Amino acid sequence: MIKTPYLLFLGDAPDPLAAKVAQGIRDWRPENAVGQFRLPGCKADLKIPDMTLAEARQAGAQTLVIGVANRGGVISDKWMDVLVEAVAEGFDIASGLHTLLKNQEPLVAAAKEHGRELFDVRLPNVQYPIADGKKRTGKRCLALGTDCSVGKMYTGLAMDAEMRKRGLKSTFRATGQTGILVTGEGVPLDAVIADFMAGSVEWLTPDNDPDHWDHIEGQGSLFHVSYSGVTMALIHGGQPDAIVLAHEPTRTHMRGLPDYQLPSLEALRDMALPIARIANPDCKIIGISVNTAALDDAEATACLSEIEERMGLPTVDPFRQGAARLIDALVAE
Amino acid sequence: MIKTPYLLFLGDAPDPLAAKVAQGIRDWRPENAVGQFRLPGCKADLKIPDMTLAEARQAGAQTLVIGVANRGGVISDKWMDVLVEAVAEGFDIASGLHTLLKNQEPLVAAAKEHGRELFDVRLPNVQYPIADGKKRTGKRCLALGTDCSVGKMYTGLAMDAEMRKRGLKSTFRATGQTGILVTGEGVPLDAVIADFMAGSVEWLTPDNDPDHWDHIEGQGSLFHVSYSGVTMALIHGGQPDAIVLAHEPTRTHMRGLPDYQLPSLEALRDMALPIARIANPDCKIIGISVNTAALDDAEATACLSEIEERMGLPTVDPFRQGAARLIDALVAE
Repeated sequence: MIKTPYLLFLGDAPDPLAAKVAQGIRDWRPENAVGQFRLPGCKADLKIPDMTLAEARQAGAQTLVIGVANRGGVISDKWMDVLVEAVAEGFDIASGLHTLLKNQEPLVAAAKEHGRELFDVRLPNVQYPIADGKKRTGKRCLALGTDCSVGKMYTGLAMDAEMRKRGLKSTFRATGQTGILVTGEGVPLDAVIADFMAGSVEWLTPDNDPDHWDHIEGQGSLFHVSYSGVTMALIHGGQPDAIVLAHEPTRTHMRGLPDYQLPSLEALRDMALPIARIANPDCKIIGISVNTAALDDAEATACLSEIEERMGLPTVDPFRQGAARLIDALVAE
Repeated sequence: MIKTPYLLFLGDAPDPLAAKVAQGIRDWRPENAVGQFRLPGCKADLKIPDMTLAEARQAGAQTLVIGVANRGGVISDKWMDVLVEAVAEGFDIASGLHTLLKNQEPLVAAAKEHGRELFDVRLPNVQYPIADGKKRTGKRCLALGTDCSVGKMYTGLAMDAEMRKRGLKSTFRATGQTGILVTGEGVPLDAVIADFMAGSVEWLTPDNDPDHWDHIEGQGSLFHVSYSGVTMALIHGGQPDAIVLAHEPTRTHMRGLPDYQLPSLEALRDMALPIARIANPDCKIIGISVNTAALDDAEATACLSEIEERMGLPTVDPFRQGAARLIDALVAE
């Protein structure tokens, strides 16, 4: 639906985490990431070529993807200048921000003038049902984090990739803008109306073959007070058979909430399992995924060993090591 | 904003619970409930005069309030005939259904022709913020149910009424269509976009006097898989200092979910408190509210005593007995 390949717009991202949309595309569909476009002060770098709009067009880029998220999803004037110019240069624009492209008058006018398309992937385009809680066939796995942005999407994508590599039946089910931009479809869960959240997740993960696994993209955290309701709906709509706990070991407080400490993995386990078993009494926690990007090799190894011993569960960094041990645990169930 | 008094439209309500919107108005603002309008097959009865549209207009009714809710909030053809006729008779229409009056072409045309207004109280008309989790001044109380529709709104309204009677500072904060129709303002939480749910509850319950209590209207249940995400956002956005557990002792399964058993009050307590303490470490459960409408006096007394002894908390039916003991417990904290 969205034309590839992309130029990834990083704007003036205040830190690398803010560019996780672009990072996800770069990591999981590198063939679609022709280059990056950065404004002065940008603190993110995907380590792909910096390009002007004209250079990226010459390199074949069809769509400028806004690869940066910020709280509230505002489009600044500085950004708007670039987007309008991009449309004039022949780009379609795709965005997962709360602030919709289709509501930006100058951009809509430019797109009309130049015959280009604007894609708001965050906008739900389906009338989701209210969840009925009925047991569905097939299996589902969900990653739950001690915080937001700790690697839940990477975990799901890596587990899906590993299962496909083994010839097993598997689908990654996107619930956020990055996942939707990576896979081309999904539910933009944080933009769904409250009453229909759990129902949208049921809709996203329908009946399937008994040996098929959906890897549902996680969102938020039960311990993150801004978004915990979204996480709750994901658990009760997704009815996971298997949960992977996700963690980032160097985080000093909950993302965006300086007064909130991160919970321990034990606290997450003890809260998550009773909640998940309301919808699926057989749900099990099968492993732990740790984002060790901030650690060197020795530190990462020590961190993973310590957690594995403490928690008694296979513990990996799926980006560093792949998800093979998590899939071993999953198929052993 | 909405003109009073009302004619309460019960439609073809399949059971009395489906008419809880009308029931709430009748119980808490009886002076606004001139009469009820019922279609053949209606299983609800407010014990106020049945009136035709013309009779209600003659009795002074200004607004026809849709006092019946159904899953998904559909407006049937049978209903639409009445609504269009009501507009022609001179009524404004107010509704809290998901299906919006303003999207019903025949109704919009009739309202325009006859110069009447359509009020969709379910529709958010504020751009809510994302929750920041900051501690706010003043105190907040929230009722959490073992299921949906077990008396959480009644509990909040009764506690608010009791505090005002004692000259204490108190506000009922509506989070659903009934509460909004009763009080004239609030947040229609189940229609808020997922990411802004907790923020809308922060917005609804701002800084206040240290000795002021907000009684926040509860929604859904942590154990109801269709709506648990809404309940979660209410807890983390509301940061309650005090929780009242709400229960209906004769319910045989979760409302609308025949395969789901009700949790015990102990299970609700054990799940709710750790969740609430993420946002407010000082949160306490101060009492239990039991809807004993289905029990006779002796059964109700026995039921309340048994629960009070088992749980070690003041246990009342606030509709039957008032909320005095709950307020005693609240002010003792």
